[in-house]
Amino acid sequence: MSTVFEEVKALCEAVKAAAPTLSMQTNEKRNRVLRAMASALLDNTDQILDANGRDLSNAAANGVPAVMMDRLRLTAERITGIANAMLELVALPDPLGVSDSFTRPSGITVNKLRVPLGVVAIIFEARPNVTADAAAIAIKSGNAVVLRGGKEAIESNKAIVAALRLGLEREGLSPDLIGLVSSTDRESANALMQMRGLVDVLIPRGGKGLIRNCVDNAKVPVIETGAGNCHVYVDKDADLDKALRVAVNAKCQRPSVCNAAETLLLHRDIAAAFLPKFYAATREWNLELRGDARACAILPEAKPATEEDFATEYNDYIMAVKVVDSADEAIAHVNRYGTRHSECIITEDDEVAARFQGLVDAAAVYRNASTRFTDGGEFGLGAEIGISTQKLHARGPMGLEALTTVKYLVSGDGAIRR
Amino acid sequence: MSTVFEEVKALCEAVKAAAPTLSMQTNEKRNRVLRAMASALLDNTDQILDANGRDLSNAAANGVPAVMMDRLRLTAERITGIANAMLELVALPDPLGVSDSFTRPSGITVNKLRVPLGVVAIIFEARPNVTADAAAIAIKSGNAVVLRGGKEAIESNKAIVAALRLGLEREGLSPDLIGLVSSTDRESANALMQMRGLVDVLIPRGGKGLIRNCVDNAKVPVIETGAGNCHVYVDKDADLDKALRVAVNAKCQRPSVCNAAETLLLHRDIAAAFLPKFYAATREWNLELRGDARACAILPEAKPATEEDFATEYNDYIMAVKVVDSADEAIAHVNRYGTRHSECIITEDDEVAARFQGLVDAAAVYRNASTRFTDGGEFGLGAEIGISTQKLHARGPMGLEALTTVKYLVSGDGAIRR
Repeated sequence: MSTVFEEVKALCEAVKAAAPTLSMQTNEKRNRVLRAMASALLDNTDQILDANGRDLSNAAANGVPAVMMDRLRLTAERITGIANAMLELVALPDPLGVSDSFTRPSGITVNKLRVPLGVVAIIFEARPNVTADAAAIAIKSGNAVVLRGGKEAIESNKAIVAALRLGLEREGLSPDLIGLVSSTDRESANALMQMRGLVDVLIPRGGKGLIRNCVDNAKVPVIETGAGNCHVYVDKDADLDKALRVAVNAKCQRPSVCNAAETLLLHRDIAAAFLPKFYAATREWNLELRGDARACAILPEAKPATEEDFATEYNDYIMAVKVVDSADEAIAHVNRYGTRHSECIITEDDEVAARFQGLVDAAAVYRNASTRFTDGGEFGLGAEIGISTQKLHARGPMGLEALTTVKYLVSGDGAIRR
Repeated sequence: MSTVFEEVKALCEAVKAAAPTLSMQTNEKRNRVLRAMASALLDNTDQILDANGRDLSNAAANGVPAVMMDRLRLTAERITGIANAMLELVALPDPLGVSDSFTRPSGITVNKLRVPLGVVAIIFEARPNVTADAAAIAIKSGNAVVLRGGKEAIESNKAIVAALRLGLEREGLSPDLIGLVSSTDRESANALMQMRGLVDVLIPRGGKGLIRNCVDNAKVPVIETGAGNCHVYVDKDADLDKALRVAVNAKCQRPSVCNAAETLLLHRDIAAAFLPKFYAATREWNLELRGDARACAILPEAKPATEEDFATEYNDYIMAVKVVDSADEAIAHVNRYGTRHSECIITEDDEVAARFQGLVDAAAVYRNASTRFTDGGEFGLGAEIGISTQKLHARGPMGLEALTTVKYLVSGDGAIRR
């Protein structure tokens, strides 16, 4: 056993030991704790900005790209924003409590409850705001949390977690309800995946490699999030104005996120009319198109796509294009290459739309609307811990309920089974 | 790649290809299919009994114990019972369809649906009735199913699955919606665990070794079922008559099942009054007690328990006994040794009961009622595919809903994200 493994284990043990002090608290009390955590964050703005300054210097020294520097940077305004997001959680309904209650002929009364999962572990990358967001969502749902962030933000994360722990203490709760893994190397992530009996769920938020590693190697339950190889299919009966608006938005509005589109599928009957317009409309972002043979024949500016292109989540101003003979060919392509995240058909034909929406296997399937709407806020969940691309437990944008489980409390007066 | 692996893969591919022919069918149609499957079973009673006869001869030749022979044996009456269980599913509410619907300020309309998981795989052991039950629950919930039974029942399983597939064909559906793995060696179970992209969930129903193997090695999502190291704790403020009735029932009514109790925890204040009575009440089953030092001091007939005993699911007329100083010690013991299945406190003290039920981490926590009630039928679910001992997705007795997932169908009129 390595030192890192032992450290992670000791941290998880402390967090698990603290968990029962929160799990049975009322919604009112948990809301008071959230307010205390938000106040403590604001009170410690200077310390957090100092720490963030050290992260930024280190990042600059290590040649971290400007985009990442921006995600890493905190300001007093951003810290206020993080505290406000915490206060918004206060207003959300309690995800815990009795969801059903019934008495059976045997004489038992069964109360079905939603209860916290227990200990939630989250592995994430550069953005320090995730640290506070994730901790607050865990606390609102009655869970203790183990956070393991990226090395670029470690100083900021330490300062943020110290403030949040102070908030817990001010409300008389154990600070160990929020634990931060101090090691940021791969070994600490791998150790967290082995904490069976200590970690009730592990949520990896990050790149494909991290998620794949968790799914393949974790001994604790994992919720897969984030991978999004999303498609927009323009049907032969599409309104091409809607198609243009939606396809451009799905690809170009924010290409770095998981619900952005990566491949454009065009019915052969509208491909020649649509593709040049789409190309023209995306010149302001200088979008690179990579087409199959038929797409390249229509649009000489397109580069030839390889098989690999159709399986790639670019997260960039690049898009694959394929011409298909039918909606069924589009459905088959999506089900083969998609990551079951967000998929879209543009059509005015109700029957084709129903077939596409029924047969495409994904968390969210759109008709005449942008894939970019797959988001907790856009769906009205009020808080989001990630977007699940798996089918079990939670699928699509995950709100507070995703961090709860069921518990049956059964009572009788000496009832026995016959 | 071995031949067994290739066979399992080909079977899973065929079942997955068939799945969309069922997933969008109405509840009415799925009910007609269940009726056709029940009829086909009854029509093929002779063939199934012949096949079962071959299994019984093989089992007798292999010296299979009498208890197992009984679980393996089919009769015309048992086949009628299996068909009737299928018809009972017809009466249950549809687990699929729209569960929520809302329009957002952005202009999108979101329909939240419950949809089938897709392909459900089940690994189970000797009882041939599970074959038909599991297939029927899958079909009712719109899923295709891959069944992998034990070698003792392979001939019976083949005959049952042939009849069920005939029922599917009579309703114009693909027989490949129900697939049986013909190899019954360990390699075929291991192959099934690797079918990522083909199997949406794997439910192992069987012994600890099988479940452990699935959890450790499966690359497909798994729902853990069945392991039940359950406790009855008799508090100092227990009504000892209720305690006696419940503890005897929890241990002795059917010790071979997962919701039977394995350890008796006794508060020191009532241990001397209770234990001899319990011992006397269990003489008709000749229950063997294995106690800690204090229990053995009270009851000389008890054998000394080892640490191992407290971690053992006996599934037999054996019970561990431990004397504790407090309800908190009982809670700690249960959370340490329990398998999060079913746990019980006997007490008249509301506060202690609330503390025990709140802090014990299990699917079902009982007060003054037998752990034996953790069962889909007893909870009124109408159908049960197993009892989940994990926290994610489904916990406790799993009904039809456990075989479904969420899908968001979103529509707009060219809606884009700003």
